[in-house]
Amino acid sequence: MAHLTFGAGIWAFGRIVDRYATDGYGPERSTAGMLELAAQVDGLEYLDINHPFAEEDLAPKTVASMLDGLGLKARAVTPHLYTRRFARGAFTNPDPAVRRAAKDRVHAAVEAAAELGAGYVKFWPGQDGFDMPGQADYPRLWELTVEAIRELAAAHPETRFAIEYKPKEPRVQITLGNAATTLLAIGEAGVDNLGIVLDFGHSLMAGEAPAEALQLVHRHGRLESAELNDNWRGWDDDLPVASVHLFETVEFLLALRRIGWDRPVLLDQFPFREDPVEALSHSIRTIRRLDAACERIDLAALGEAQERQDAVAAQRILWSAI
Amino acid sequence: MAHLTFGAGIWAFGRIVDRYATDGYGPERSTAGMLELAAQVDGLEYLDINHPFAEEDLAPKTVASMLDGLGLKARAVTPHLYTRRFARGAFTNPDPAVRRAAKDRVHAAVEAAAELGAGYVKFWPGQDGFDMPGQADYPRLWELTVEAIRELAAAHPETRFAIEYKPKEPRVQITLGNAATTLLAIGEAGVDNLGIVLDFGHSLMAGEAPAEALQLVHRHGRLESAELNDNWRGWDDDLPVASVHLFETVEFLLALRRIGWDRPVLLDQFPFREDPVEALSHSIRTIRRLDAACERIDLAALGEAQERQDAVAAQRILWSAI
Amino acid sequence: MAHLTFGAGIWAFGRIVDRYATDGYGPERSTAGMLELAAQVDGLEYLDINHPFAEEDLAPKTVASMLDGLGLKARAVTPHLYTRRFARGAFTNPDPAVRRAAKDRVHAAVEAAAELGAGYVKFWPGQDGFDMPGQADYPRLWELTVEAIRELAAAHPETRFAIEYKPKEPRVQITLGNAATTLLAIGEAGVDNLGIVLDFGHSLMAGEAPAEALQLVHRHGRLESAELNDNWRGWDDDLPVASVHLFETVEFLLALRRIGWDRPVLLDQFPFREDPVEALSHSIRTIRRLDAACERIDLAALGEAQERQDAVAAQRILWSAI
Amino acid sequence: MAHLTFGAGIWAFGRIVDRYATDGYGPERSTAGMLELAAQVDGLEYLDINHPFAEEDLAPKTVASMLDGLGLKARAVTPHLYTRRFARGAFTNPDPAVRRAAKDRVHAAVEAAAELGAGYVKFWPGQDGFDMPGQADYPRLWELTVEAIRELAAAHPETRFAIEYKPKEPRVQITLGNAATTLLAIGEAGVDNLGIVLDFGHSLMAGEAPAEALQLVHRHGRLESAELNDNWRGWDDDLPVASVHLFETVEFLLALRRIGWDRPVLLDQFPFREDPVEALSHSIRTIRRLDAACERIDLAALGEAQERQDAVAAQRILWSAI
Repeated sequence: MAHLTFGAGIWAFGRIVDRYATDGYGPERSTAGMLELAAQVDGLEYLDINHPFAEEDLAPKTVASMLDGLGLKARAVTPHLYTRRFARGAFTNPDPAVRRAAKDRVHAAVEAAAELGAGYVKFWPGQDGFDMPGQADYPRLWELTVEAIRELAAAHPETRFAIEYKPKEPRVQITLGNAATTLLAIGEAGVDNLGIVLDFGHSLMAGEAPAEALQLVHRHGRLESAELNDNWRGWDDDLPVASVHLFETVEFLLALRRIGWDRPVLLDQFPFREDPVEALSHSIRTIRRLDAACERIDLAALGEAQERQDAVAAQRILWSAI
Repeated sequence: MAHLTFGAGIWAFGRIVDRYATDGYGPERSTAGMLELAAQVDGLEYLDINHPFAEEDLAPKTVASMLDGLGLKARAVTPHLYTRRFARGAFTNPDPAVRRAAKDRVHAAVEAAAELGAGYVKFWPGQDGFDMPGQADYPRLWELTVEAIRELAAAHPETRFAIEYKPKEPRVQITLGNAATTLLAIGEAGVDNLGIVLDFGHSLMAGEAPAEALQLVHRHGRLESAELNDNWRGWDDDLPVASVHLFETVEFLLALRRIGWDRPVLLDQFPFREDPVEALSHSIRTIRRLDAACERIDLAALGEAQERQDAVAAQRILWSAI
Repeated sequence: MAHLTFGAGIWAFGRIVDRYATDGYGPERSTAGMLELAAQVDGLEYLDINHPFAEEDLAPKTVASMLDGLGLKARAVTPHLYTRRFARGAFTNPDPAVRRAAKDRVHAAVEAAAELGAGYVKFWPGQDGFDMPGQADYPRLWELTVEAIRELAAAHPETRFAIEYKPKEPRVQITLGNAATTLLAIGEAGVDNLGIVLDFGHSLMAGEAPAEALQLVHRHGRLESAELNDNWRGWDDDLPVASVHLFETVEFLLALRRIGWDRPVLLDQFPFREDPVEALSHSIRTIRRLDAACERIDLAALGEAQERQDAVAAQRILWSAI
Repeated sequence: MAHLTFGAGIWAFGRIVDRYATDGYGPERSTAGMLELAAQVDGLEYLDINHPFAEEDLAPKTVASMLDGLGLKARAVTPHLYTRRFARGAFTNPDPAVRRAAKDRVHAAVEAAAELGAGYVKFWPGQDGFDMPGQADYPRLWELTVEAIRELAAAHPETRFAIEYKPKEPRVQITLGNAATTLLAIGEAGVDNLGIVLDFGHSLMAGEAPAEALQLVHRHGRLESAELNDNWRGWDDDLPVASVHLFETVEFLLALRRIGWDRPVLLDQFPFREDPVEALSHSIRTIRRLDAACERIDLAALGEAQERQDAVAAQRILWSAI
């Protein structure tokens, strides 16, 4: 792509914890500290920033000027809808007060996004779902989900929203678990300013071919953002780009070219045991290298091989480019 | 359910082969032989019958009278769209002549269904998809799929059609691989006489909660048929009902009750190493037993537990019923 | 079983965090607080206790008298070998100082176990493994693992040790990932006082039939402990017993009976969104109910059905017992 | 590797069937026809040949001279132990007469192997296992398995035998399902002339890192043969080499170099929808290309990165070689 630009989730630069290393995989970092690290990643221009910020009393304006001072921009704001209070669901929480609190978080994120000049507010409803057979009234979860996203998108017609789907984690099964289900929910919500963040790794987890899912979402006019990373298919390992799935990543980049993608490509990594600046710089280098390979692919020949379903010929063309 | 009725895919009674036991898991059987076995299964009334029939020169009328003589009925006709000629796809085959041949098979199946009095013609596009990264032009596969199902359903407005989705096998990845994707394809086709066969085992393979998928399909008014069986989640093992997933099966039966399902429940089993009459009779007994358990479930209490997302209480209610 | 006794990992009663709900799924709890909750679980007698304890200055003696006062006993002590310092491995950490620190933690756990009267010290080497292709020198990881467990077991010949295997989490792939691999490591270590903790859920994750793995470990004389819980096969969801896999749980209980298991059955649950006392009490009730069902199984008939590989007959026998 | 040589399973050149395309994915081919195709694959020298041969009355001598005439050699003979008669198991079949028949097949294969000059006789016990929970007496299956391989290996001390493990298919769960379990069975059999065929794709299915499994088997002195292919992890898709997992394949080749592998690398592919000569030639070209990349890898630098567990540095080194 002519002007490939890059962004990342700010969480890559913060302290990551999990249920075992409860003391964290690295030092605690302030918003300023995370942004400074982000600025050291060669090629990184954009950030997806969680809200509320790491420091409760931090004003969006202050963050905006931090970004500005470092030559960074906000690409998205992601409200924390999956912390303790939302453990049994944000939009689908059994308690109406918690559902309201979730919506309030979104309203606040919309304001922050406006001040930061972010392109979209991301819904990541990772606690909305269920854990065991028998536990869920599925139509009820669905209706609460659709109503919430409709209400929120309708309340802020000037704001772009985007749902990042994922099949599981933290909830054992998440309601908006794959591309098509999310498209159906968006269709039912019936609002225009609502799209999808297609995360490569979540797509692998969902049993999709990410390049296929990307084009399905695009076909419905709902592709708001694209995120890259990698995993071993069974779980959201959030590894560096193409560390496992090289050809699927090439295919994904080819699909982005085909649809004329000109917005940033985001990295959603969790460098548990790696230096975040190194891990993200490596991913950007990898994407650039693979994008250069895409440039070398004989698209006409690839198209012909695909048209006649000659899988070996198609693979040969990819191999000769890398 | 008041009047639970049962059907089965005729293939359960035929010779099954696979890529290793190429000499088959049992004796070759004629259509008459398969139907006679089916008639021995206690409670089995309906069949999903493949077309062309096992004997090429067999007339639908003859099959109709065989069924009649045995007290059986046709529930569905499933054209063979996945045999050798269609190895690189039926609706999406690169060769237009093969795509036409696939449609001709459907036209013939429609005729047979009419003569047999079958409720629907099933599309099972198991060869429509791809095998390796880089091989497929996904939007092209999608368009060919949507066009074919639209054309076929539009050509026979009096006939009901239904797509049975499945994520993989025989194709390594199948285009219509889960419930929501299939709903999107149906929506894009824009025809009314086209629905979905929800196969419990395919739904497990797709990472869905089958009861959730069933209700999503019903919400869209597209539930044409429901099939039961079981597997270990990773593959379509086509085992007897609830041999692995007891609570998911209970949930599925509860969902059928909730939507007022009054059509047959079909069994899609491949009794590779079992006596087919025994294996299917066992499944029907199991469903009846679990349906009786559903009768004992305190639905109000379950609803309350679900409403407050009390998973342990919900499980306790299910346990006390079984 | 005549005298079924129960234990649990103390972590079920503490604050659980994950990488999203970093503020935890419940309130922080002291050791005393956790033990008090444990004492409320009907039928729970034993605990697997992490060391260092929740409070750094807590003496094993104090914990011993807390246990005593509540009518509880220590079944095991599990040293924290998977916290921040050990993120790149405990026994296989690239830094010899960290490897020594891991061993020191084990030595301290041995002392604590002695004071608590615990039956074994558990190795749970969840950070020992790797994340990406190309990263690991596998024979080196193996050798470091074998040397460490040999050295530690040899240093404390009076103490029983047990390894709990798991295929992944927190490390993306864990070296001791299934039953047979762990038996090979134990064999190579060549020490007598080292066995295996067979966790039902880890076994499902590893693609094993848990009852088969249990008997394989027993065959090698290395079964030190057995833990129950449940999951959806792809991940260690740590759900209540038999919430998903009822027949596999029955099979597991039958296997425990067959080998004459007379030690406690432990629960390894993470009740993220449930009341821990409720969630564990429910599991104990479930096990008792299924154990009573085992009592009703006609073992001679089951054995005959198994001997002739009549799967449907075997299932029928199980069904008639539950 | 200095002298990389290649072989393939003869089945790649025959008619493949599955349970849907029961009329096969290609034309029926005679032994002569299959061998002629094999001879057209550039670089292919060795074959793993099923016995009984495609034509019942074909004498091993005749096959030997066919091979000779085409410049091919037999690498292995694989007795058909998984056809109809063995559907409920070969070595573990409930019927002693079938178990004897399975052993007779092995004895015949040993003779054929001698006449063909094959390096080993392969056990592929794909029907030995079970299908549903409750069905199997696991210790009994284990004992029958161990006894059979012991008896057969002991009966032919001059012959090399090798077990190819696989977690599932055709049996729903296979007893010898991963590397470590198979090593334990071999250890218990206590014979020297029995090793393992490590199939890359089966190893992926088993949740292993194939390069790790390879070195574990080598550590035990039991690596008899190595097979390459690829899949999507969940099933044995038998795709061309590195069509999905490039870095794992590189790692595997590096491991083969490290252990000084100087025997052929075999291809186990099922080109359902591809020209077999093309599909296998492509794999050999791919392996050669990746082996040349291995040549360029700075092994000292890679070793250092691995020693300090610097995953990103290790990946960077691999990337710079490809």
